[in-house]
Amino acid sequence: MNIKVIALGKIKEKYMKSAIDEFLKRIRPYCSMQIVEVQEEPVYSDVLASHAREIEAKKIREKIGSNSFVVALDIDGVELSSEEFAKKIDALASSGLNSVVFVIGSSTGLDDGFKKSADFRLSMSKMTFTHQFARLMLLKQLYRAFKILNNETYHK
Amino acid sequence: MNIKVIALGKIKEKYMKSAIDEFLKRIRPYCSMQIVEVQEEPVYSDVLASHAREIEAKKIREKIGSNSFVVALDIDGVELSSEEFAKKIDALASSGLNSVVFVIGSSTGLDDGFKKSADFRLSMSKMTFTHQFARLMLLKQLYRAFKILNNETYHK
Repeated sequence: MNIKVIALGKIKEKYMKSAIDEFLKRIRPYCSMQIVEVQEEPVYSDVLASHAREIEAKKIREKIGSNSFVVALDIDGVELSSEEFAKKIDALASSGLNSVVFVIGSSTGLDDGFKKSADFRLSMSKMTFTHQFARLMLLKQLYRAFKILNNETYHK
Repeated sequence: MNIKVIALGKIKEKYMKSAIDEFLKRIRPYCSMQIVEVQEEPVYSDVLASHAREIEAKKIREKIGSNSFVVALDIDGVELSSEEFAKKIDALASSGLNSVVFVIGSSTGLDDGFKKSADFRLSMSKMTFTHQFARLMLLKQLYRAFKILNNETYHK
């Protein structure tokens, strides 16, 4: 299975880099995993933030690739338990798609049009976390999903 | 305001320690913050896990102190947005309590009786995260709460 995470901006903090690298290493035995970083557009005001998000959405779309299932991370999206998330990953893995693409927006969020066009909008929490931390939360849940599928579906 | 986090077990990973230290440093200008670590009881089976949780609950109770508001972290608890969480912190800060105590269980969770006796059960996500990661998520939300309160209530 191919999983791509398209994320805005670079991770700056050293501890976040270490944590993300650790989880990438843990996930890779289970799937082909790729993180694609897209540069954040500069924002000078609230009005320009929506314009920046549009440009970012265009750049994200160019990275998605054909026959992909697009999951937009969105605080107002659907919340799933880890078990439900694992089932979703399992269903997608056997659906003949090229890849599942998770998209994490910038510090100002994701373009509304992009969110609407996504195949699924996933909320990891009602609480707001930074988009950089969301990347780590997502990797942790992907790792947990593979562990759940491996123990409960494949090994039992 | 006094905030105490009672958490089971020690943080092992270096990157988690760095992240937690970073957020403790950021939170301390806003409140008196203390993390109290309670040793995890060894668990050998599912039956003994509930017994271990009972012993852990007893040790947790000894650390709580009088006139405290106890928040048990519980995946089945109430989910709040960051803004709602900030409002709750603000209300508790002006309620004349000695302290607000957040309790994060061990890898097998928190004792059912303890959860029932808590003043509030908070869920940070429907997804399962490790109890160690939950500690970092909580500190991040506390920091965000103080930032929200500082900008919106104190400075405006």
